[in-house]
Amino acid sequence: MLGKLQTPVIIVNFKTYLEATDEKAVELAKKAEKVSLETKVSIGVAPQFTDIANIAKAVSIPVFAQHIDPIQPGSHTGHLLAESVKEAGAMGTLINHSERQLKLSDIDAIIKITCEKGLVSVVCANNPAISASVATLKPEIIAIEPPELIGTGISVSKAKPEVITDTIKLVREINKKVIILCGAGISRGEDVKAALRLGTQGVLVASGIVKAKDPYTILREFAEAIRI
Amino acid sequence: MLGKLQTPVIIVNFKTYLEATDEKAVELAKKAEKVSLETKVSIGVAPQFTDIANIAKAVSIPVFAQHIDPIQPGSHTGHLLAESVKEAGAMGTLINHSERQLKLSDIDAIIKITCEKGLVSVVCANNPAISASVATLKPEIIAIEPPELIGTGISVSKAKPEVITDTIKLVREINKKVIILCGAGISRGEDVKAALRLGTQGVLVASGIVKAKDPYTILREFAEAIRI
Amino acid sequence: MLGKLQTPVIIVNFKTYLEATDEKAVELAKKAEKVSLETKVSIGVAPQFTDIANIAKAVSIPVFAQHIDPIQPGSHTGHLLAESVKEAGAMGTLINHSERQLKLSDIDAIIKITCEKGLVSVVCANNPAISASVATLKPEIIAIEPPELIGTGISVSKAKPEVITDTIKLVREINKKVIILCGAGISRGEDVKAALRLGTQGVLVASGIVKAKDPYTILREFAEAIRI
Amino acid sequence: MLGKLQTPVIIVNFKTYLEATDEKAVELAKKAEKVSLETKVSIGVAPQFTDIANIAKAVSIPVFAQHIDPIQPGSHTGHLLAESVKEAGAMGTLINHSERQLKLSDIDAIIKITCEKGLVSVVCANNPAISASVATLKPEIIAIEPPELIGTGISVSKAKPEVITDTIKLVREINKKVIILCGAGISRGEDVKAALRLGTQGVLVASGIVKAKDPYTILREFAEAIRI
Repeated sequence: MLGKLQTPVIIVNFKTYLEATDEKAVELAKKAEKVSLETKVSIGVAPQFTDIANIAKAVSIPVFAQHIDPIQPGSHTGHLLAESVKEAGAMGTLINHSERQLKLSDIDAIIKITCEKGLVSVVCANNPAISASVATLKPEIIAIEPPELIGTGISVSKAKPEVITDTIKLVREINKKVIILCGAGISRGEDVKAALRLGTQGVLVASGIVKAKDPYTILREFAEAIRI
Repeated sequence: MLGKLQTPVIIVNFKTYLEATDEKAVELAKKAEKVSLETKVSIGVAPQFTDIANIAKAVSIPVFAQHIDPIQPGSHTGHLLAESVKEAGAMGTLINHSERQLKLSDIDAIIKITCEKGLVSVVCANNPAISASVATLKPEIIAIEPPELIGTGISVSKAKPEVITDTIKLVREINKKVIILCGAGISRGEDVKAALRLGTQGVLVASGIVKAKDPYTILREFAEAIRI
Repeated sequence: MLGKLQTPVIIVNFKTYLEATDEKAVELAKKAEKVSLETKVSIGVAPQFTDIANIAKAVSIPVFAQHIDPIQPGSHTGHLLAESVKEAGAMGTLINHSERQLKLSDIDAIIKITCEKGLVSVVCANNPAISASVATLKPEIIAIEPPELIGTGISVSKAKPEVITDTIKLVREINKKVIILCGAGISRGEDVKAALRLGTQGVLVASGIVKAKDPYTILREFAEAIRI
Repeated sequence: MLGKLQTPVIIVNFKTYLEATDEKAVELAKKAEKVSLETKVSIGVAPQFTDIANIAKAVSIPVFAQHIDPIQPGSHTGHLLAESVKEAGAMGTLINHSERQLKLSDIDAIIKITCEKGLVSVVCANNPAISASVATLKPEIIAIEPPELIGTGISVSKAKPEVITDTIKLVREINKKVIILCGAGISRGEDVKAALRLGTQGVLVASGIVKAKDPYTILREFAEAIRI
């Protein structure tokens, strides 16, 4: 069960935090796995590229890359090949995170590559209109994250519920199947609960977990909020 | 000895070739290590980000990242942190490869980061003028690679020797210490020999080794050419 | 009548061709105006930024910028401000041309700016999926141009009619009002006729007119093809 | 005399300020010309692309573009062609302003294009190391501007004199001829005087003039500071 992605889901983006680099990344992934096992809530992790292989070996929960490039194998020094993150053990990838925004044609090309390679595509979007725009490209997951709330601890689900409800409305007119997550400022169980109540199928979270004094306890609180 | 970078040196850029991804990347790195052990010639490898950790565990030769970003730890999804490639086992990084060109101020910032973190900087340059420009920023290694010869099998050291001699002349006026490599089209031992004869301290090579039918034999030929 | 944009429409993209720079740009715009007057067919021109003011003074047909940046007035050296192209006399702007592709969030931001400033937005798209993606952002015009046909003289309307019909189908599911143009390889009147027959409301053309020996005659042929 | 660039020189960057767009840009350029005529101090202006032609017709002082792209005439929608800014009347162009930073290889390519086309190259640099790096590429003018002081009113020449003296020292080791300007925070005559005293040959200024209540008076103060 663990290896599969089920909804509701929590995806923890490790970004380039030192608290989630190298050995600390593996430890954090193990805590996520522990919570997932204890609560039966699906939890995925998105570590740095260099840590994917070690984490995929150490845990059974879904592992995501934070980005891949719209390239085929070949002469592309310094780029991120779909095959490389897949063979390292990633089951999918974030695409177009607000800290790594992409050209529209590259988003389209990367989603196509993830389909061909059997990777799960998690496309991030800044606002409801962009979420709808992304929905036409048929990714498996859309994560709506207002950039102005990222890292603030002010949760989108409480501070801007209309961003989430507008997103769901616009996206569902276009795409009935895509999984919709929300993110930005999610730091307590009640933020997660609010996100689900508004109609999302989970959350994308980063500093709320990674920079927490006790990531296990907070992640457990998130998972309990989903379970109840 | 193996772990240190000595000149003359051969650096093999794995790019995003499938022949040098995941397990095949580790195998190729082991062949490079074997040649290095047999010939006492310094050989480094620059695999994809996802393969750095496995390769650094499997071999004792220098491992390089293909790129890092000009960032500090923090909120930078999908970026390459110096600390992440270092903790994974890289001793340095390529910077500004012609397939991953950077803004001038980013090259400057990345070189400073490599100094702070104790990583070896290998800055690539398209032509003699750009090599001189880079030399002022005090990287440890400059690799001159005319992009129009990359992947052609037509070696810069034979087809455009003046590019190499002009580079050495211009760079040495500015920087006496920087190690100068050349690349592009290097596919036979005699190309390597020509490169050294022109005054470089080694070569940066990719398809000539990675796409070779028998990488071990070609790499051995390269190393012999250096040794003699 | 001339100053307004009516459909069907022909938009001539001057790109950075010398044949359509400075005085030659003004001359070409005058030829476009002449054909428009003679045939009552709406024809717009998209010259280089430096030529917008002179052309807008010299002719009465619609003038478009080739790009604007997603910025507000202020400290943005070397960028293209909506106000600057509008005050110079442009009535709208191309956005996301395949030779000047943009991040999805920038396309969204630029369309919003064009609405606020009363500029007509002409968003270019590479393929049917991207056209649909763009349609959700509510531009006034979408121009579908398969990049592999640009500049070839092989017209999309004859070589890849399914690209056009797929685009129209996908776009109309999302947006009933947006004007749909097609481009790439349009070089004869029959290409224009085919484009309209497939359901588009006009064409975006560049080298077919700009590089023609006799632009007036070809443009007249295009306009006749629309009129009949 | 006016049309030529002489040192010491003041270059006024109009950026994308509304106070320096369209007619207001022409008016501001006329004030600059008036001060130049009255004081015999060389003053250049760098307006937006759309305003170059009108300004070049209206005044006799040097006009600069704020950016050009490293392209040849052809199929490059939305780009800035050297020929287009030259034919519009610009005598040169800013390159690599901190608000429009470029890849190193593009800086090199653009400088070569300016040489071929007879345009004056004014390359901006963030710090002394980058200034030296740029000096190897042989532009006609280098403008050192610490980005953290831009728009602050805290002048580099008073707040960070060592940035200027370090720049001059490093640049002169490499290039004896290049004209060195400084910028960022220049807002009073004494800032200009300090800049010259430190060894520069003029200033690059933007908000200090453009956003001033009375640009003529401030610019006159700048010019007087140079004359005395």
